[in-house]
Amino acid sequence: MSVHSVHSVHPLARRLAENIQQLRQRAPLVHNITNFVVMNLTANALLACGASPVMAHARQEVEEMVGLAGALVLNIGTLTPEWVQSMLAAGQRANRLGLPIVLDPVGAGATSLRTESARMLARDLRLSLVRGNASEVLAMAGLGEGAKGVDSRHGVEEAAQAAGQLAQALATPVAITGPVDLITDGSTTYRVANGHALMGRVTGMGCTASALIGAFLAVEPDPLAAAACALSYLGQAGEEAAAQARGPASFMMALLDALYYLEPERLEQGARISG
Amino acid sequence: MSVHSVHSVHPLARRLAENIQQLRQRAPLVHNITNFVVMNLTANALLACGASPVMAHARQEVEEMVGLAGALVLNIGTLTPEWVQSMLAAGQRANRLGLPIVLDPVGAGATSLRTESARMLARDLRLSLVRGNASEVLAMAGLGEGAKGVDSRHGVEEAAQAAGQLAQALATPVAITGPVDLITDGSTTYRVANGHALMGRVTGMGCTASALIGAFLAVEPDPLAAAACALSYLGQAGEEAAAQARGPASFMMALLDALYYLEPERLEQGARISG
Amino acid sequence: MSVHSVHSVHPLARRLAENIQQLRQRAPLVHNITNFVVMNLTANALLACGASPVMAHARQEVEEMVGLAGALVLNIGTLTPEWVQSMLAAGQRANRLGLPIVLDPVGAGATSLRTESARMLARDLRLSLVRGNASEVLAMAGLGEGAKGVDSRHGVEEAAQAAGQLAQALATPVAITGPVDLITDGSTTYRVANGHALMGRVTGMGCTASALIGAFLAVEPDPLAAAACALSYLGQAGEEAAAQARGPASFMMALLDALYYLEPERLEQGARISG
Repeated sequence: MSVHSVHSVHPLARRLAENIQQLRQRAPLVHNITNFVVMNLTANALLACGASPVMAHARQEVEEMVGLAGALVLNIGTLTPEWVQSMLAAGQRANRLGLPIVLDPVGAGATSLRTESARMLARDLRLSLVRGNASEVLAMAGLGEGAKGVDSRHGVEEAAQAAGQLAQALATPVAITGPVDLITDGSTTYRVANGHALMGRVTGMGCTASALIGAFLAVEPDPLAAAACALSYLGQAGEEAAAQARGPASFMMALLDALYYLEPERLEQGARISG
Repeated sequence: MSVHSVHSVHPLARRLAENIQQLRQRAPLVHNITNFVVMNLTANALLACGASPVMAHARQEVEEMVGLAGALVLNIGTLTPEWVQSMLAAGQRANRLGLPIVLDPVGAGATSLRTESARMLARDLRLSLVRGNASEVLAMAGLGEGAKGVDSRHGVEEAAQAAGQLAQALATPVAITGPVDLITDGSTTYRVANGHALMGRVTGMGCTASALIGAFLAVEPDPLAAAACALSYLGQAGEEAAAQARGPASFMMALLDALYYLEPERLEQGARISG
Repeated sequence: MSVHSVHSVHPLARRLAENIQQLRQRAPLVHNITNFVVMNLTANALLACGASPVMAHARQEVEEMVGLAGALVLNIGTLTPEWVQSMLAAGQRANRLGLPIVLDPVGAGATSLRTESARMLARDLRLSLVRGNASEVLAMAGLGEGAKGVDSRHGVEEAAQAAGQLAQALATPVAITGPVDLITDGSTTYRVANGHALMGRVTGMGCTASALIGAFLAVEPDPLAAAACALSYLGQAGEEAAAQARGPASFMMALLDALYYLEPERLEQGARISG
């Protein structure tokens, strides 16, 4: 891995090692209001990283539940207006409590309901970070032709400028995931080159990224750092899994295993973070 | 495999090879309004075959979402009246757009809500195909004693005549899956002998069949052919998986892997389609 | 395994072997009204043990569906008031039919909605068994500081006395799962020492335990025996899986496989039931 022997280790690589130790020691509760497709996967990914997941969406309990949590993850992948109201209520309570919130605008740009719900949540809540694919970020910025359902029609770098503008307009860092992930607040930009092509052949990998960023935010106050660390961690688990997989399902199993067993030192060495 | 060396290759075997290539090249969006039990599995099976899945059920967005899709799959496995209304609205838009629709009447015959919802959708929409187990097809035809929950009490051939009558009454081809699958429009009938007994020990295998038929319909205009190809493909993935599995969970993982890696020529050679 | 050669085999170990044979022969329908996170896992675990699962939650069909079933499992993991009303209606029908009901009070103590819903169901239905973690059982008994989301803050033995009191107050046996499971009706108490630490790193393991107890109740009239057998069976599958796993996902796959292939005699020998 000449990139690591030639270049010095990125400061965020060390932060990744520290954050993963913190996660495994403190096991923060991460409250998810997320979509039906990924609920099981998200819960297992959070458990594998050391966090304690809870899924709760009833309007009658979300404010109470988020009060127990270290972070809130909002994901509109199978939204209805009622669920979005629960997201808003949970988010407002999280804001009052000073808890970090991640928004995953799944399918923004594909339908008006998704685009408008994502924009409303970003406008009415103080988010810590928005994570989407390139089409979703373009759609939130009012650009692009919209996602193809929940898949991106655009490359990450095509949306880089829009991400910076969106981050400044919302005063919220934005992460775009893809072959090389990009995280920006409009002035500082990080790129994470960990990962494997099979990650695009499994459902919910972006949702998993958002949930892991939520977990890291429960132990790491800087959202840019939390996102870069979480995405490098997930990408390294993908690299580890690809070496063992015959296809997307064995890949997914090996990835979840790797989230569980990858050690802090190894993650520090394997991080491909720049910027 | 004397069946293949003795008999000539069925024309649909070649079609299977062509269709799978088309799917992997064109990655059509398949819009699913399906049940909570199988959403993750369905999304992963569609990704593995080359399609791009989306799950969206909100009344406010289904018509817009289906406008982006190449096919619509309706599955009543965990239905409520509200979800059925969304299925109807999405289906009506699909009909206006000329998009293919597959209906999976999960549990028809077990409860009135299921039987009546399935019949209403079949009556009020122009479907491309209905796929069910033998009990579900009998129930839709007004025969049989109903499913045992979502499992069949009947063998495929017991329901063969009912399938033909139902297909003619609805002017819609009907597929019954089981050890040997049957697809009929009331005059032409195909049988597909691919598969493995472990497919009955994993939840959502019928739902996966319906979703894959939806994907094939996005590239193959003949519904009988699309169903025979999709069922042979799924069955061959099951045969491949059975050779590697210790039980139903490792079987399911290997099956999804096989959907991803099985090559067109191999699928052509392994197809056991007759009729 | 000196424990088995020195001590005589516990009578419930033989019952476990008989019950698993009954399950595999009779394949009872188990009706689940459960949470979105575990629906797929629960269905697969029930299929693996030999039962036939169905998930149905619509108010319009639950009473009809439970009429086909051998047992009903109610799980409030992602509850809303509407779902709880369906649970109540299904439970009342089950009571009229004399069918066994298991309640899994997921997250009781974490929010008022969960605590009150669990207590209402336990009060208004004649349950066969309540299964929870230590925090949930304490919360139902009006003690403890509540669960951390859906995870326990307490050890099993801390809640042993509360379990006995709750069992007597409800006239319903209570099972607490953890490293050593405890099942009590307030006078007779069994402990089950099967299992593995990785069971706590996979989502839905408690829910799986509740569903398997439901399946055993469809063939075993004594709720204490049904719970002890089901928990030993699940724990032994966990022990078997741990020997093959690299992390929580390969563990979960191997556990489901083991539920399917573990033979009655082996389960009888491996049972670590006392009391």
